[in-house]
Order: sequence, then C-alpha cells, then structure tokens
Amino acid sequence: MTYDANNPFARILRGELPCIKVAETDAALAFMDLMPQADGHLLVVPKEAAAEIFELSEASLTASMRMTQKLAIAVRAALRPDGVFIGQFNGAAAGQTVPHVHFHVIPRWQGQALKMHARDVADTDTLEAVAQRIRAHWRAD
Amino acid sequence: MTYDANNPFARILRGELPCIKVAETDAALAFMDLMPQADGHLLVVPKEAAAEIFELSEASLTASMRMTQKLAIAVRAALRPDGVFIGQFNGAAAGQTVPHVHFHVIPRWQGQALKMHARDVADTDTLEAVAQRIRAHWRAD
Repeated sequence: MTYDANNPFARILRGELPCIKVAETDAALAFMDLMPQADGHLLVVPKEAAAEIFELSEASLTASMRMTQKLAIAVRAALRPDGVFIGQFNGAAAGQTVPHVHFHVIPRWQGQALKMHARDVADTDTLEAVAQRIRAHWRAD
Repeated sequence: MTYDANNPFARILRGELPCIKVAETDAALAFMDLMPQADGHLLVVPKEAAAEIFELSEASLTASMRMTQKLAIAVRAALRPDGVFIGQFNGAAAGQTVPHVHFHVIPRWQGQALKMHARDVADTDTLEAVAQRIRAHWRAD
C-alpha cells in the first residue's frame, strides 16, 4: 500500500478525528477498533508514517511491539479471555484496510467466532466501558 | 498455555527434531511451517522458553519481531505475494497449537483463501525449494 497522509489513523494521530484511547507512548497510540471483531479488540498504531511493516523503522517496531505485548497482558487481566490474537496485516490481500501500519490485539473466547473485519460499527459507550477496564490494567512501565 | 519443555518447537531448538531452516540469530530460529496455510508460510520461534507472548522477555520480543519483519521483507522479495499476514496466537481459543511462543509469517495472494491451520503436511522437497528462495533474500544485518 502507498502511504496517504490523510488516512484515518494519521488523522487520529494528528487529533483531527476522535478515538477511544486506551494508552499512548512517545512512539505509538492505542485505541479501540470501531468495528471490533470481538469485545476488547484494540489497535496499536505507530506514530511514524509507514503504510506497512516493511517500511517501519526498527525503533518504531520495537516500541510498538512492546506496547502491543503490554496491552495483550492488560486485555487478558481486564477481560479474562480464553486467548489473545495479535495480528498485523500488510496489503489488502492480507486484510489491511487502512494504509498506516497497525497491530490488532483481539481477545478470543472458546467457541466464539470472530466477527467480520470492518463491517459493523460498535456503540461508543460500550467501547468506552471496555476501554476503561483495559486502561485500569495498563502499566506505562 | 503451560510451557512444556518437550513441545515440538523446543525439540527443534535443541536439534532433537528436524526443521527446514530459513534463518537463525542468537535469539530466534525461523523455519517453514510443515502444515502451511499458504506457500511460503514460515514461523519465527524465540529461543527463550515461553509458552505465550505474555511471558516473553522484552529482549526476546524485540529480537524476534525484528527477525519477523526482516523475514516478511524477504518473503515479499522472494515470492512477490499481494500481501503478508503476521500473526501471533496465544491460547487454543486464539489458534495456538504448540505451547511455545511463535510468530507466523504468511504470504497472501488476492482471491486465495488460507488453508486450514495444522491440517495437511506439505511435501518436504516443495518446502525446501520455497525456503531456498526466501533464504536468498534474508539479510542477517
């Protein structure tokens, strides 16, 4: 994918679009996916402008993955899922819909299939309530 | 998942089981998935003994993800897929089948669905031929 400075995540990073924030570091921002595939589905978005993981700097990759790991731990503590899926999609053929590199953290429950990606927009109050539970377990270090 | 020192990946790391190796660093080993979901499906396995990402040390996470990124770049150069999926599954409910943390790198082609996970064992010569093509693009740094 080609980087487009007006992609929705770049606009969220610039404060031009709202998000339900879960955590923020110097290197990345984490917020709830508006079209979650399961309860607690969140995204970690590096602040660096890169469309796919191929172009992401080593420093940004490292900081983003450390944040992803810590949020997976927070999600597990907050929601007690049976498992946690971490996914990073490059290219439309791999399921990427926004041309700014991002990491999915998706809680999984036994016997509960994932909802379709990028289809139904969730209720904001519901997302905010889940975000609050995850934030309570986030440790900045 | 509970760590089991006799899991297949631990045995591969100890040289007790064979693998079709793609790359190796001090921190991790990459080899072809024997039951690939697409051509070129490989795994990056940290040498540290950890069942899931939650327990993985920061140093091991960083080194493993850097290797994963570089292998995604190598896979893209070698096989020219339309996309690359990177996935890391924690818990059976998330699709984890081996209790040793690992990262999937799976090339994706438009209109070609992923095969079922951990079902059909691929032909070794075919896997070796693909591994050779990926190795040719691996840069140790």
